[in-house]
Amino acid sequence: MTASAPLTTLADPDTPFAVLDVSRSQRNAQRLAGRLHELGVALRPHVKTAKSLQVAALMHDGRPGPITVSTLAEAEAFADGGYTDITYAVGIAPHKLPRVVALLRRGITLQVLLDSPEQARAVTAAAGEAGVRIPALIEVDCDGHRGGVLVDDDALLTIGHELHEADCLEGILVHAGESYFAPTAAGQREAAAHERDIAVAAAQRLREKGMEVATVSVGSTPTAHAATDLTGVTEVRAGNYVFFDLVMAGLGVCGIDDLALSVAVTVIGHRPEHGWILTDGGWMAMSRDRGTANQAVDHGYGLVTDLTGTLIRGLVMTGASQEHGILTARDGHPLPDLPVGTRLRILPNHACATAAQHHGYQVIDSAEPPTTGTAPRITDVWQRIAGW
Amino acid sequence: MTASAPLTTLADPDTPFAVLDVSRSQRNAQRLAGRLHELGVALRPHVKTAKSLQVAALMHDGRPGPITVSTLAEAEAFADGGYTDITYAVGIAPHKLPRVVALLRRGITLQVLLDSPEQARAVTAAAGEAGVRIPALIEVDCDGHRGGVLVDDDALLTIGHELHEADCLEGILVHAGESYFAPTAAGQREAAAHERDIAVAAAQRLREKGMEVATVSVGSTPTAHAATDLTGVTEVRAGNYVFFDLVMAGLGVCGIDDLALSVAVTVIGHRPEHGWILTDGGWMAMSRDRGTANQAVDHGYGLVTDLTGTLIRGLVMTGASQEHGILTARDGHPLPDLPVGTRLRILPNHACATAAQHHGYQVIDSAEPPTTGTAPRITDVWQRIAGW
Repeated sequence: MTASAPLTTLADPDTPFAVLDVSRSQRNAQRLAGRLHELGVALRPHVKTAKSLQVAALMHDGRPGPITVSTLAEAEAFADGGYTDITYAVGIAPHKLPRVVALLRRGITLQVLLDSPEQARAVTAAAGEAGVRIPALIEVDCDGHRGGVLVDDDALLTIGHELHEADCLEGILVHAGESYFAPTAAGQREAAAHERDIAVAAAQRLREKGMEVATVSVGSTPTAHAATDLTGVTEVRAGNYVFFDLVMAGLGVCGIDDLALSVAVTVIGHRPEHGWILTDGGWMAMSRDRGTANQAVDHGYGLVTDLTGTLIRGLVMTGASQEHGILTARDGHPLPDLPVGTRLRILPNHACATAAQHHGYQVIDSAEPPTTGTAPRITDVWQRIAGW
Repeated sequence: MTASAPLTTLADPDTPFAVLDVSRSQRNAQRLAGRLHELGVALRPHVKTAKSLQVAALMHDGRPGPITVSTLAEAEAFADGGYTDITYAVGIAPHKLPRVVALLRRGITLQVLLDSPEQARAVTAAAGEAGVRIPALIEVDCDGHRGGVLVDDDALLTIGHELHEADCLEGILVHAGESYFAPTAAGQREAAAHERDIAVAAAQRLREKGMEVATVSVGSTPTAHAATDLTGVTEVRAGNYVFFDLVMAGLGVCGIDDLALSVAVTVIGHRPEHGWILTDGGWMAMSRDRGTANQAVDHGYGLVTDLTGTLIRGLVMTGASQEHGILTARDGHPLPDLPVGTRLRILPNHACATAAQHHGYQVIDSAEPPTTGTAPRITDVWQRIAGW
């Protein structure tokens, strides 16, 4: 904002809109960076949660560093933003290889992911045709949650050889999807150890056959925070941690006070006969994600704070239609008196899904004391990268 | 497309992307328009499902007509597109009234919605200050699903008087939210009759006190298709019907062959040990909506067709992460052989939520025979209106 721009606060933009508390994001970023520094392993943050160059800068201390992306649109936008070391961590569809080659030709080191001999052949063929090296990671499954070959499957070697012969073998990638369902610190430590063990074992299996494995990549937000020994691992991927959310708080990976993303909404009505406060933030603003539904405490579509971020205890967003939210009080809590026009903020279940419903973030800094009344000042507006 | 543009088909764009079958949308639009013509009542389609000027044109036979919107961003974009009679059907937050006044000053008849005396006072104050009439509809609740005053609540008269005195009273609006949970035709007919009865009774109550009620507005996709008598109603709102979806098919409002929206995805892997086919379409492409979870048949995140739209019987999208979909076979059905690179289409649970994950639609016409292999030709790309 220029010095002459009028002061805007969270009381100003029309609701609903996404709010990013930059000091919380910085704290979250520093926490994981510090941990991984102690463990002696590199961080390759996943930018799919925020999809923002400015948020990625927080994760890398202001300088472009290695990142993980979930779409080629992210890869292209981050390449435009000066990032040169990018892993596209979704199994490659062969028809997307021309965009991969185009990025490689721009000097971007773009790693692709695959878990089948067909994909490996498509990659080596495209590399041969284009005359470029396409660095490829083999996805190895550690817990049956998504893609990946099993570490003892001969397909690992078949794929490895196909890539190795064409000089496209970069390494191994493992993602502990099960860790999102491990509700105890011990369970998360176990998931982290298992993720590492499988990744290291897969790399070892390839190396024993004379193949060079430069990258051994693991990661998820829970395992990145739980790992105590990452010997043999070269890098950790995690993304959600820069925002955190109620699912992560439910797992104990963070506290509610660490949540950096929220959605500002306005009270538009009351149904006292049902115990409802109605807002103008429905699933279009929050997403349909109900990630805490299967946790010990179900937070509906989210918890409620006032505009400064102070939790309104016992108030939960329990219902959503497209542009309407329903807030109710948990058993034993009174329904607070929140007149029509009152602005609130909703803390989401799943930051990746909620952020995706918005085109950008109104940035505040909760470390800065409010300057007008109780509404935090908007210091900036950061755009998101959209599409595929 | 210009005559010299290369032919593109659903085999061309990088997946995932939204596909709109224009002949199905036309057929759906004509079906409801025909019904309402027979019932002698006007149609005010809700454009929140498609958020597209081109789709709205299908619903109005190519000419701008009355519409319903869910955001002021839609109202502004449709005003730019020549629409002059718009109902913003979310309870008005007072801070949004300056944008309402700006539209009214452009000559757009923008009706706002409210259900409290506070909102009514905010509207009449804004009208007085701006020197414009702000036409307001009073939301009346018929089944306890969202906002609205009860028809026998004195607040109805209080709000009516406040608006009437300031010449802002336009009418009554009722929405039968319960109809989305009425699994039988009889239940939907009953919901439609009840929606009408409540709307007409509310209008009557105001008229008995000498207030003029020009608009008696009802609607939802199920009740619009179930109503048999709309005496006393002046207009019907419905939106989802232009696309339909698995939830509506589950209610029997349409058949699977009527679904006009789908998402094109590509097979990126297999996990035969789990019975999974993996695709590059996750919840980012489909939304997190699991609307059929509470219906008689749960379709997971969606049903699967080939690229021409032919259903692959027994195949269901049962899992989703951000950019990964998991397809599995229902009991008794074999898992089809779909190699890496195969393109499919997913029919969504909830068209409003799935469409919102995309910036536009690749338009096809299933009434047109395919011209290259089996991939339908893309005849156009239609953009969506985003944000609030």
